[in-house]
Amino acid sequence: MSGENLKHAQGGVDSIDPTASVGQACEFGQNVVVQAGAKIGAGCTIGHNVVIRNGTILGEGVVVGDNVVLGKQPRPSPTSTVKIREALPGLEVSDGSSIGAGAIVYAGTKIGRQTMIADQAFVREKCVIGDYVIVGRGVTVENETIIGDYVKIQTGAYVTAYMTVEDHVFLAPGVYTTNDNFMGRTPERFKFRKGATIRHGARVGANATLLPGIEIGREAFVAAGSVVTRDVPPATLVMGVPAHPVRPVPEREWAENQ
Amino acid sequence: MSGENLKHAQGGVDSIDPTASVGQACEFGQNVVVQAGAKIGAGCTIGHNVVIRNGTILGEGVVVGDNVVLGKQPRPSPTSTVKIREALPGLEVSDGSSIGAGAIVYAGTKIGRQTMIADQAFVREKCVIGDYVIVGRGVTVENETIIGDYVKIQTGAYVTAYMTVEDHVFLAPGVYTTNDNFMGRTPERFKFRKGATIRHGARVGANATLLPGIEIGREAFVAAGSVVTRDVPPATLVMGVPAHPVRPVPEREWAENQ
Amino acid sequence: MSGENLKHAQGGVDSIDPTASVGQACEFGQNVVVQAGAKIGAGCTIGHNVVIRNGTILGEGVVVGDNVVLGKQPRPSPTSTVKIREALPGLEVSDGSSIGAGAIVYAGTKIGRQTMIADQAFVREKCVIGDYVIVGRGVTVENETIIGDYVKIQTGAYVTAYMTVEDHVFLAPGVYTTNDNFMGRTPERFKFRKGATIRHGARVGANATLLPGIEIGREAFVAAGSVVTRDVPPATLVMGVPAHPVRPVPEREWAENQ
Repeated sequence: MSGENLKHAQGGVDSIDPTASVGQACEFGQNVVVQAGAKIGAGCTIGHNVVIRNGTILGEGVVVGDNVVLGKQPRPSPTSTVKIREALPGLEVSDGSSIGAGAIVYAGTKIGRQTMIADQAFVREKCVIGDYVIVGRGVTVENETIIGDYVKIQTGAYVTAYMTVEDHVFLAPGVYTTNDNFMGRTPERFKFRKGATIRHGARVGANATLLPGIEIGREAFVAAGSVVTRDVPPATLVMGVPAHPVRPVPEREWAENQ
Repeated sequence: MSGENLKHAQGGVDSIDPTASVGQACEFGQNVVVQAGAKIGAGCTIGHNVVIRNGTILGEGVVVGDNVVLGKQPRPSPTSTVKIREALPGLEVSDGSSIGAGAIVYAGTKIGRQTMIADQAFVREKCVIGDYVIVGRGVTVENETIIGDYVKIQTGAYVTAYMTVEDHVFLAPGVYTTNDNFMGRTPERFKFRKGATIRHGARVGANATLLPGIEIGREAFVAAGSVVTRDVPPATLVMGVPAHPVRPVPEREWAENQ
Repeated sequence: MSGENLKHAQGGVDSIDPTASVGQACEFGQNVVVQAGAKIGAGCTIGHNVVIRNGTILGEGVVVGDNVVLGKQPRPSPTSTVKIREALPGLEVSDGSSIGAGAIVYAGTKIGRQTMIADQAFVREKCVIGDYVIVGRGVTVENETIIGDYVKIQTGAYVTAYMTVEDHVFLAPGVYTTNDNFMGRTPERFKFRKGATIRHGARVGANATLLPGIEIGREAFVAAGSVVTRDVPPATLVMGVPAHPVRPVPEREWAENQ
């Protein structure tokens, strides 16, 4: 346990709870806080001023940048529709993944192997994120969203709550998704609240907007700046405001043909 | 004063100025800096690596996340049009409000009760923000903007300087507002510089753009992805680029009928 | 060297590498980390919880806000197209420039004099940024981009990799640029990958989207919310989705006539 393992930590570890454990050959920056029950695997690199909150589990060889907060418990505002009854289980980050400087990842979320949560990104509670994923700089992933493997979500994109993003999807910078056509009014909104479903290999262009509940078909392509108001068929390129079909997506661009 | 009250603080407070005061039953994280003249009310929870700058006033039961900066003095760039002559009064945050991890809130701003400034958000100087407001993750609120009560500003929205946002307004993720039709050219621009006015209960959809000086009428609804180039009448739904009126907003969706 | 100069530092400097140097009359906040080979010029002000990584060079009178990370080495994800073979040279920030709270600036980048990188902004490796520039709050500047003098990039704008932004350009809040028409598919994409070129004095309105490889002509004006799919001639105002020419830009609005 920690008493022994802490000898492996390099640098000025400030505050490691006695119930936390740190694997062999980890490197720590200055002013790191590791709270109760956290488990840090062997060979992790932890930056300066990092806060690892209760019960967070890091696999082997995880790299955490400066000023990161891991395992934050959600604390909804007094007027939020999200209700939290008890503490969520700790955040889990699997082997070989990295968390960029200034990023915040909540408790109750699981992140796969070899995945990168980039600098200043933000991932809420109860998400499941796959392997070999990039969650880009400053991206938001809201609560209870499922993201497959080999997904790339680029800078500043906004992935709303209750979404499904399948394998090999590409979301360009500044894509905005939504899940509530009523924008916070009427009791019906809870019945219809649903984020987009983005099927295997689909690509969504920069600064596009996806309306609630729509489905972007397998290998579809949404052009930059489009506003997507209805489902997009598989392997179809759409563009415009509102987006309309223009042509098929050539097979040589499909994910399975790369 | 602080000498006595500091005994109530839990944890490893690093640096509290002797002229600062801390109320009873506060909890502090590691590496907290509290500068001269700051006043922290009873029952506050302060995260790790928090910087509370000169003269900041926190009410009772305020919750501050990790890596937050409160009460920063503005320091405009050499080429900015904002000129600052002397230090502004401290930031004020009222009872029961919270500031999310990584957020930055400037001096000279007042935040009401039970309001949430979410993670990584940014609020400039000389703003007045009401009660029961949500300023979402990564939102920007520029200087000298007035925000009413029960307003929800969602992730990544940009609220420009000199705006008025009335009670019960809803701004969806990625809404962008503007205040200068000349984008930094000609002396006339200072005469016409004006942000949008968003009236009681109005809703603006995801990734919409509002041109300078326009008024969004009471209970109006701007569809996602619209570019609003002229005033929107009350209780009217507009959409498109440029946005045009489509139909009335049903009364059951008005804020007063929730 | 540092042994002597450190006496000039005010406050609780936590960790300065013995091979780093600090000029006269600098002020340091709490919990500052300065790593090997860093050089901090005379009269710099360094905030709390700042991390200055290996080999970073700050000129005279540079102001660094709280929670800043300077000189981070890039560490691409396993699936990124960016490959890094060895450590880049240190970040260089010239006299009189400032870095806002929570900002992150990578190694291998050079920033000119009297330039402001604002709060929570993000600048990647191998960029060259000129004098008297503003990189606004939360802006992203990706790798290997060239930015001239007197450029203003406003809140939340996204400047992609391999772009050229000439002197006196104005990018409004939320402008999104792109550099890959194939969004990560086919080998051809590497041949055509190219960001926009934005010529002297051009202005791009809020929430506009610029497609890959286009050129925005000298003193051109892109209206807010436009999607620019082809080159914009000099001194021409364009608007719409897709953007089309509307009228000339009056000479009194040109940068050279201010």
